[in-house]
Amino acid sequence: MNSLFKTIAIVGRPATPALGEPMHRLVSMLSSSGVRVLVEESAAQEHDVTACQAVSQENIGKLADLVIVLGGDGVMLGAARMVAPYHVPVVGVNMGRLGFLTDLSVSEMEAQVEAILKGAFNPEDRIMLEARVMREGREIDRQLAFNDVVMSRGSCGSMIEFEQFINGKFVCRQRADGIIVSTPTGSTAYALASGGPILHPSLPAIALVPICPQSLSNRPIVVTDSCRVELVLTGARDVVHVFYDNQSECRLQEQDRLVIRRFRNTLRILHPHSYHYYDTLREKLRWSAQPQLL
Amino acid sequence: MNSLFKTIAIVGRPATPALGEPMHRLVSMLSSSGVRVLVEESAAQEHDVTACQAVSQENIGKLADLVIVLGGDGVMLGAARMVAPYHVPVVGVNMGRLGFLTDLSVSEMEAQVEAILKGAFNPEDRIMLEARVMREGREIDRQLAFNDVVMSRGSCGSMIEFEQFINGKFVCRQRADGIIVSTPTGSTAYALASGGPILHPSLPAIALVPICPQSLSNRPIVVTDSCRVELVLTGARDVVHVFYDNQSECRLQEQDRLVIRRFRNTLRILHPHSYHYYDTLREKLRWSAQPQLL
Amino acid sequence: MNSLFKTIAIVGRPATPALGEPMHRLVSMLSSSGVRVLVEESAAQEHDVTACQAVSQENIGKLADLVIVLGGDGVMLGAARMVAPYHVPVVGVNMGRLGFLTDLSVSEMEAQVEAILKGAFNPEDRIMLEARVMREGREIDRQLAFNDVVMSRGSCGSMIEFEQFINGKFVCRQRADGIIVSTPTGSTAYALASGGPILHPSLPAIALVPICPQSLSNRPIVVTDSCRVELVLTGARDVVHVFYDNQSECRLQEQDRLVIRRFRNTLRILHPHSYHYYDTLREKLRWSAQPQLL
Amino acid sequence: MNSLFKTIAIVGRPATPALGEPMHRLVSMLSSSGVRVLVEESAAQEHDVTACQAVSQENIGKLADLVIVLGGDGVMLGAARMVAPYHVPVVGVNMGRLGFLTDLSVSEMEAQVEAILKGAFNPEDRIMLEARVMREGREIDRQLAFNDVVMSRGSCGSMIEFEQFINGKFVCRQRADGIIVSTPTGSTAYALASGGPILHPSLPAIALVPICPQSLSNRPIVVTDSCRVELVLTGARDVVHVFYDNQSECRLQEQDRLVIRRFRNTLRILHPHSYHYYDTLREKLRWSAQPQLL
Repeated sequence: MNSLFKTIAIVGRPATPALGEPMHRLVSMLSSSGVRVLVEESAAQEHDVTACQAVSQENIGKLADLVIVLGGDGVMLGAARMVAPYHVPVVGVNMGRLGFLTDLSVSEMEAQVEAILKGAFNPEDRIMLEARVMREGREIDRQLAFNDVVMSRGSCGSMIEFEQFINGKFVCRQRADGIIVSTPTGSTAYALASGGPILHPSLPAIALVPICPQSLSNRPIVVTDSCRVELVLTGARDVVHVFYDNQSECRLQEQDRLVIRRFRNTLRILHPHSYHYYDTLREKLRWSAQPQLL
Repeated sequence: MNSLFKTIAIVGRPATPALGEPMHRLVSMLSSSGVRVLVEESAAQEHDVTACQAVSQENIGKLADLVIVLGGDGVMLGAARMVAPYHVPVVGVNMGRLGFLTDLSVSEMEAQVEAILKGAFNPEDRIMLEARVMREGREIDRQLAFNDVVMSRGSCGSMIEFEQFINGKFVCRQRADGIIVSTPTGSTAYALASGGPILHPSLPAIALVPICPQSLSNRPIVVTDSCRVELVLTGARDVVHVFYDNQSECRLQEQDRLVIRRFRNTLRILHPHSYHYYDTLREKLRWSAQPQLL
Repeated sequence: MNSLFKTIAIVGRPATPALGEPMHRLVSMLSSSGVRVLVEESAAQEHDVTACQAVSQENIGKLADLVIVLGGDGVMLGAARMVAPYHVPVVGVNMGRLGFLTDLSVSEMEAQVEAILKGAFNPEDRIMLEARVMREGREIDRQLAFNDVVMSRGSCGSMIEFEQFINGKFVCRQRADGIIVSTPTGSTAYALASGGPILHPSLPAIALVPICPQSLSNRPIVVTDSCRVELVLTGARDVVHVFYDNQSECRLQEQDRLVIRRFRNTLRILHPHSYHYYDTLREKLRWSAQPQLL
Repeated sequence: MNSLFKTIAIVGRPATPALGEPMHRLVSMLSSSGVRVLVEESAAQEHDVTACQAVSQENIGKLADLVIVLGGDGVMLGAARMVAPYHVPVVGVNMGRLGFLTDLSVSEMEAQVEAILKGAFNPEDRIMLEARVMREGREIDRQLAFNDVVMSRGSCGSMIEFEQFINGKFVCRQRADGIIVSTPTGSTAYALASGGPILHPSLPAIALVPICPQSLSNRPIVVTDSCRVELVLTGARDVVHVFYDNQSECRLQEQDRLVIRRFRNTLRILHPHSYHYYDTLREKLRWSAQPQLL
């Protein structure tokens, strides 16, 4: 087969025995297509994949032309943050709960992947966020996020206080459980549970969605993705966390500044031709499902 | 004075005796600045403005280089729809309730207008919507809207049923009191009362906000302003209306298609340098106001 | 069979040919049980029911010991308002869309009705509202409602203004599309679509739920059902309606007072033993349905 | 003066030097009224109150006929939980941020307290909650709450999973940040920030308000205060907490059952005659505040 992609890396959800069978199927299918196959090293070890090269997470972005994710949205988020600096596209096979980002199904995986290798896909470029934590003028943390950057109270139940700036302009002061700074991709994740709007993935936008704000008149606000969002932690009785896609975190002190911008690269997702965003919305989120009729 | 604008038209809220005094002040100030002054003809008649040319609403866009609105947001909306086809900028003097769009104050009007004539302003281009009603393939109505296009149940209390398409793709079927298709400008008006997010005016976006949807899982969705939004009325027990900025309307029948796109022109608003969007949000909407402290 | 109820009236959804077959089945089943059967006269005529006595709506409450409703929630609401003054219990056979109030199914109707006639049911007493419209001190309308009393803007899109009093105390002044005064039964109907909470039917409560309130800090409020709720219409650009269960209505003028209290009688619904409120919530409203899992 | 209350205890917000002056004023005023005055021992020590008896928190409920709280709502909540088992009424002097529960003002304290001692007050009885944590059939914690019992994710950002039962009936399964079980008193606190309704204090009700529920169709539900609410923690990636009025807490393990009922006693608050609930709502919460008018 004449694949558009010469080197393909496979990433899988860790500690998931059920991943072994489809991973071997996928390796075998790709190898027989004449593609160079890489498997993320911990997955290779977990599932005894020896027929192809194991590669560290750090090197995947450098080596691969395409990343295939076996797992759910969480694994997809991690892969996105891993390869976004290298402009490598990703495609997902859903083995998770929701599968909002992973379009392919395990049962039809081989045919769907083959179609994609032949170029039968719709590419979609999605923005990511880069967040930096500034403490007394120094950067103490810098991370990418595909869904959201969340500043949130710790395990103590007390609200936190923070100020919000956009492009250097004061926006408001809040007391809340926290705030979600979300991409369009993240708008159907935690931000939606917290009352945010759905943003179409093609919208060049960042949403700021408060979590349980004390002010009754607070509302989510959506700004263009060229904005610089700054959150300054002004009060907290307990440790406060920043979460990046709820996968990594940093602990904040009072007066720390969390500065969030669109990352310079977008992430390219390859969708099968059968994919339609609004269908996914209705089917996965039961969005707009009507009350049960006879 | 050397004005950037040679011909300036004044538009005022109708049936408002209190407008007479500031309108005369404004005419006098503009005339003495060497500017050609036009006054919308019904306002000229209502307030006995004879020192300058009265002009019909239809001609304002063709003749003026700038429109100054005396009134509130409603008058501003009407002026926007009147002049948008002609690329004429507008500036507003707040004599209304809220004054979200009208930045200047009556008391400082002369100084603020003079500054603007000299070029001391920040121009802001805002999108507008163009809505068409299609019945059996024929266009039966076409209107502009600066805030929103609202499809809404009539005076009977029953919900309406409609289908929603974006760029020809089916999005969902709804039962609701109606739906608001809103610009960023309109996002702080009716759409906000109906649970929609705040969209910054620079966001190239259209929000679709349901009004009292029967489906518990329905949520507002925001799409790019290049989208074609179509609403097909599929069920109604009573007359259904489309409202354009709540200023003009059209009556719908079942199977009518309401097609909404961004209008080809933007509307330019001239803001004084003192204007800041987030300040206005906090001050006018009491957005994010904290509970009363000691 | 030894029925607890000697005289049973049947009420059906009008203009519904599909009702004929089950109605004849029901009449036949009840007659052979030795019960005196009445059929609401327009239904008797529509479906050619001649084997038993036709009776006017006005007389059903006076003559019947039990009312069986064939239809959906709307017919149930109408029956409730018809018989509540006479303390007659009702039971519903679901032939409608949602069937939140109608527990029996057409297919098992005979067995389920027989069980109820023998006393195998759980009675549930639900509150109703009595609303009066006062104009210049005179009562111009008085109606019952089982779901809700809704004061709502007319077909013009403009918000209305009103003041709200509870037990004579001023509560607040509002600008909104309207307000829903709801019983617990109505809390899963229009009030829910408008952002109100679900109230368990046994809660002695009345909910006041604003419809698209302009004030961002407005929230639904729930008070005890012994309260007297008064709404005074203070501003409207167009005709304003009061709807009772969205089945009858009255037109308001400015300064009209809408006075709402719990009706002196409750309505008794007879549920089969298999009925459970929370199951109905989940099944009919898809309440708390999770996103689609694999 | 002839006081209705013979022994009055004073409780104050800890670590608040500004409390010293009003506390001494209050002690002096009460002593000269012939009342026996007790001061909570840590407050007595902090402010050098030696003219009257210091008493431990545990003994206040046993000894006092009335408790006067100096501080904000937080101190009032603590006092409520301390004295509720002993049927001792409380009155609050507001020295806090919000003062929703503390009606008296420091500046008019003497006159207002004197009026209350003479019987010029409106007593209001409010329900409290008693929560028990059951682990493998054993009770491992039991606490009172005046505002709310909150089950909430820990400092890790992941949602928790739990099942909800009312009077032994399964209600639903949820994934969320947590859930708030609230009294009417608590309905204007955290539950309101999380989207719950306002419940009038006289409503015999308990609200269940989810915190950021993943299910889009979830809604707050309100049940009668005679219900037994049970929450079973079925999934968590991190430590999960129960908070009682956000003042004390317990750590949960999977399968722990949190059982919540109305406490057998109500708490009596004494309000000055000038107190009106709806006024407080508007003034303290800015409830239903209109957008800024001219």
